[in-house]
Amino acid sequence: MTATTLRTAGGSVGHVETSFLELPVAVPLDCGRALSGVRVAYETYGTLSPARDNVILVCHALSGDAHAAGSTSAPNAVRTRDGFGAEERDAERGRGLGWWDGMIGPGKAFDTDRFFVVSTNLLGGCAGTTGPSSLDPQTGRAYGSDFPVITVSDMVRVQRALLTELGISRLAAVAGGSLGGMQALEWAVGFPEEVDAIIPIASTHSLHPQGVAWNAIARNAITADPDWQGGHYHGTGRAPTAGMGVARMVGHITYLSAMSVNNKFGRRLHGADDIRYDLTTPEFEVENYLRHQADTFVKRFDANTYLYTSRALSYFDLARQYGDGDLRRAIRRVSARTLLIAFSSDWLYPPQGSQELAAALRAEEKDVEYHVIDAPYGHDCFLLEEARQTPLIRAFLDG
Amino acid sequence: MTATTLRTAGGSVGHVETSFLELPVAVPLDCGRALSGVRVAYETYGTLSPARDNVILVCHALSGDAHAAGSTSAPNAVRTRDGFGAEERDAERGRGLGWWDGMIGPGKAFDTDRFFVVSTNLLGGCAGTTGPSSLDPQTGRAYGSDFPVITVSDMVRVQRALLTELGISRLAAVAGGSLGGMQALEWAVGFPEEVDAIIPIASTHSLHPQGVAWNAIARNAITADPDWQGGHYHGTGRAPTAGMGVARMVGHITYLSAMSVNNKFGRRLHGADDIRYDLTTPEFEVENYLRHQADTFVKRFDANTYLYTSRALSYFDLARQYGDGDLRRAIRRVSARTLLIAFSSDWLYPPQGSQELAAALRAEEKDVEYHVIDAPYGHDCFLLEEARQTPLIRAFLDG
Repeated sequence: MTATTLRTAGGSVGHVETSFLELPVAVPLDCGRALSGVRVAYETYGTLSPARDNVILVCHALSGDAHAAGSTSAPNAVRTRDGFGAEERDAERGRGLGWWDGMIGPGKAFDTDRFFVVSTNLLGGCAGTTGPSSLDPQTGRAYGSDFPVITVSDMVRVQRALLTELGISRLAAVAGGSLGGMQALEWAVGFPEEVDAIIPIASTHSLHPQGVAWNAIARNAITADPDWQGGHYHGTGRAPTAGMGVARMVGHITYLSAMSVNNKFGRRLHGADDIRYDLTTPEFEVENYLRHQADTFVKRFDANTYLYTSRALSYFDLARQYGDGDLRRAIRRVSARTLLIAFSSDWLYPPQGSQELAAALRAEEKDVEYHVIDAPYGHDCFLLEEARQTPLIRAFLDG
Repeated sequence: MTATTLRTAGGSVGHVETSFLELPVAVPLDCGRALSGVRVAYETYGTLSPARDNVILVCHALSGDAHAAGSTSAPNAVRTRDGFGAEERDAERGRGLGWWDGMIGPGKAFDTDRFFVVSTNLLGGCAGTTGPSSLDPQTGRAYGSDFPVITVSDMVRVQRALLTELGISRLAAVAGGSLGGMQALEWAVGFPEEVDAIIPIASTHSLHPQGVAWNAIARNAITADPDWQGGHYHGTGRAPTAGMGVARMVGHITYLSAMSVNNKFGRRLHGADDIRYDLTTPEFEVENYLRHQADTFVKRFDANTYLYTSRALSYFDLARQYGDGDLRRAIRRVSARTLLIAFSSDWLYPPQGSQELAAALRAEEKDVEYHVIDAPYGHDCFLLEEARQTPLIRAFLDG
């Protein structure tokens, strides 16, 4: 199957600009601290209905930003979405396209002829929303590792505060993949009266322990880099790019399936017909690719944002947060209709997580629909398998 | 199932000392260079028959050494075998036991009442055999990254030179897990007239691309550490322990199955009843465990040995080396009887590799036996599932 066959029909939302809004009230955080003067970067696509009842919030994953759809001319808008398939398509389509451009637009899964779609950069981010690289008003320098340790609940609290400022008090749906799906779940459990439907894709109620381990390894790679400097590297002229590169490599391979790595690279040698007996030069195509990915990523992403976001998604655990360890009890308060989509080859967020959620929701007699899409691209499927997600999402939103 | 039930019957080879021998002739290497004055660390268990026809060579994996069985009082013999199960058992049994002690001894899989078992530290190693931390006679300082880039063939060439010195010209069997199994295969293809049988366990004819990627990531973690110093850290008082720690974490998780990580740690918190909102302190048991593993490993293992050995096992590719890309052609010269054992939950060296080997050997009408043991411990099974490997190996060696 070529990338082309995965494409969706439908139009583009066209040129968009990211907006920024400073929240007028301090945001209380799970850790007990509060953040004042939080700035939120966001984009919107489509038209808000007079009744303000057509709002869909889309939530990004670990390395995303507010720019979910359309094209932008922002100078730093080098679109490098997770996953090699996604990135190749970006290159093909030119720079500046949103990370879910295939899903958001006229006639697409999130149809901007019907819905007003809002996308925000997460709290702790490095693309416009307040995060560890923002100035700490107390010290006048970047927060660095003085930034409070945040949770998915905190991220959702900031999204909700933004929506309040935009005059939106109710969501037709919250959707997202991976960490984005965790936010959708958090919305449904934390604010059941304000959400009509959620669409968590390639997500889970709690990351499984091997996933916790991968995240810990990636964070260790960053903090082991002496240029991390205890988290206060901003303004020093040095940043933990070497550690971030290794973190990105770990992340990257966990987003792909073994089969997709094999199909894409095999054991093909890089730049030579035979091995060159060199200790550090990439000998295999996959080695070269990983290094290229690392080099690209460190130019656009802040290492501390990686640390904070990775921590938050590892903490996320609906049963622990809301059910004293019991998932059924945790989701008892959900009133939103739920569409869960998982992918057969996703081993970072395997179908089992969605399946457990579906079982708990069904046991509590909630309205839930669960699909496993049989596809080979691993966790990246949520960015790549747009054409097969689209009819499921459109039918669900019609329901 | 508790660790106890995995144990084997049979006795111990008792106290052993590692021996050392300097090869009298230079060893030619695949890269075109040659190494003179190669020292080899080795141990033997059992008694060499008068006909010298009862020799079994056992070959270690990435982080092993010559001490495969029995107990030793060597001061640096902290037995930390790959895998948490293995390491716990080491702790239980006391320090100093060989990495395959459950497999080698009177009445065990490799029965020292019948066989004379030889185990060597690999070329490039850091436990007695010449490697990058050895003195380069040309410069009088440690080779570091001036050590030649080696292959599995080179490792086998050194083993063979040692055996020649010991007066052994024929092997009843060559056995090993993981990289050790690659050596067994290399023996059978490279020196078919000298090997009666091979037992590659949890191994493959070529590492699959995702495995190549994991190895590249681990190596990148080491070389990204400024203390690696381009490979010349010996004598500087600094070594790339931070990078090595990350490399070990990556390796460690790939040795375990997702299920075994889950069974062992779940999402249990470490040292507290609730999350502590701390950016760098391990919050989960699995995070703490990884850090402990990293700290232990860097004390006993040389980073350059890791780099060179990881390179060698990534290069290994029977079809490329011996068959112009055709595996059947590559193994056509094999005359050894072959026993292949794989483990259902091993995703680093998945059963498919052994299965492809078995199919190629069968297609060439070779004598091959292939077993997949259904066990949950991932790649570590080859060190843990001794009781279930034992009857297969004993029956095969009787055959």
